[in-house]
Amino acid sequence: MSKSSTVTVRETPVSEVSTVTAGGLVIHGETFLVDTEQRIDLVDLTDRIMGVVRKLRVKEGLVSLWSLHTTCCVFINEFQTALLSDIRHFLEELVARDAEWQHNNPAHSDCDRMNADSHLRAMLLGHSLTLQVHNGDVVLGQWQRILMAELDGPRARTLRVQVWGVA
Amino acid sequence: MSKSSTVTVRETPVSEVSTVTAGGLVIHGETFLVDTEQRIDLVDLTDRIMGVVRKLRVKEGLVSLWSLHTTCCVFINEFQTALLSDIRHFLEELVARDAEWQHNNPAHSDCDRMNADSHLRAMLLGHSLTLQVHNGDVVLGQWQRILMAELDGPRARTLRVQVWGVA
Amino acid sequence: MSKSSTVTVRETPVSEVSTVTAGGLVIHGETFLVDTEQRIDLVDLTDRIMGVVRKLRVKEGLVSLWSLHTTCCVFINEFQTALLSDIRHFLEELVARDAEWQHNNPAHSDCDRMNADSHLRAMLLGHSLTLQVHNGDVVLGQWQRILMAELDGPRARTLRVQVWGVA
Repeated sequence: MSKSSTVTVRETPVSEVSTVTAGGLVIHGETFLVDTEQRIDLVDLTDRIMGVVRKLRVKEGLVSLWSLHTTCCVFINEFQTALLSDIRHFLEELVARDAEWQHNNPAHSDCDRMNADSHLRAMLLGHSLTLQVHNGDVVLGQWQRILMAELDGPRARTLRVQVWGVA
Repeated sequence: MSKSSTVTVRETPVSEVSTVTAGGLVIHGETFLVDTEQRIDLVDLTDRIMGVVRKLRVKEGLVSLWSLHTTCCVFINEFQTALLSDIRHFLEELVARDAEWQHNNPAHSDCDRMNADSHLRAMLLGHSLTLQVHNGDVVLGQWQRILMAELDGPRARTLRVQVWGVA
Repeated sequence: MSKSSTVTVRETPVSEVSTVTAGGLVIHGETFLVDTEQRIDLVDLTDRIMGVVRKLRVKEGLVSLWSLHTTCCVFINEFQTALLSDIRHFLEELVARDAEWQHNNPAHSDCDRMNADSHLRAMLLGHSLTLQVHNGDVVLGQWQRILMAELDGPRARTLRVQVWGVA
């Protein structure tokens, strides 16, 4: 039984920007970096994602947002300092950092980050969002913000946004 | 440190119905309302979503379903009175309504709905689904139903469905 | 009040393979089976999903992965024996199998699988993923693997993958 994790290998690395068209449809992708400052850190990505869509001048379409890490998530919620503090505390209580996780035990795991709690929290939040574009803008309710949850920071994180749409 | 939440502003409001085409592909969007009756209320949206797809006569495609609220979710599960009761009780136990959440504390928050529990439960269920269309119908297993979870009702809720497909 | 669950009926059954094109775009779907061996069983689907995309020679696009069952999920995480054991134990602790769930009570439910815990765990993990394709390959981080969570096995499970893309 291996202590190691399976590595995912692409034939070619993910490039920073790509755009193709198919019958009036644009498919545009780009990666971007987010630096985080705390072990659990919540970052508002809304304006950045909206900016990509507006720059492309896509009228109707969809946006896929993907985190390229197992312990960094994206999700929808309200962005308010008090609520962000509640989210952090809730995640810390729901999954105990110091329980006897096998992933943190050198007898069973070659990972030295001691981050089983981060992996379990990430499983609950999810690693991607697929959003709608309408009238040139991302469809979001008044209080909805696109949030990134760093769960094992501080780190530099890579995300990729892919926009599908009709100009 | 602000007690307020960030507001999301669109350049133009979401219209009720829109349809565009691109190279044989239809992209159709429409919003709809759901009135809920309890604080936690589970509503079966399956027939409504299937109806939109059948009306469009799309054969192969996908459907995006989006809730425009932070405390109203969509997810997949079985629709049975007994199980719905279990889901409600599980959510109530998993996130305590009366814990000392900062979002419910006027010293830290200008929100007077006292709904921190609703926000935390919503984070676990998610706000959207992206489904497949095949042979003119949504791809669902025999017991799968598309459910909406009202987590801070009773309220009138707005959702948006976007269908991509080939006729 | 019914003890039964609502059944979802398609006009035509899901076929095993289908491919259509629209303006340079390919939409390809196929179902596949996974046999599981334990009540909670975690299966790595990454190579299988990547294989479907490579076989189609799609360069830019997206992939939808759907589980056709209420108690069988798909999600992203690291694939390591120690961590998989932690995930199983966490799910077992988060939702007690032997609590007094109504779905397991013959007075309220005609389901004899006694699997309320499976349904509640599934609600937290989710039943689908929508992934990006770039440069002919699925976009995944180095440690990200596409995992299936059997939550009420052992069973034979059906999933459907739908690829959208430009060759």
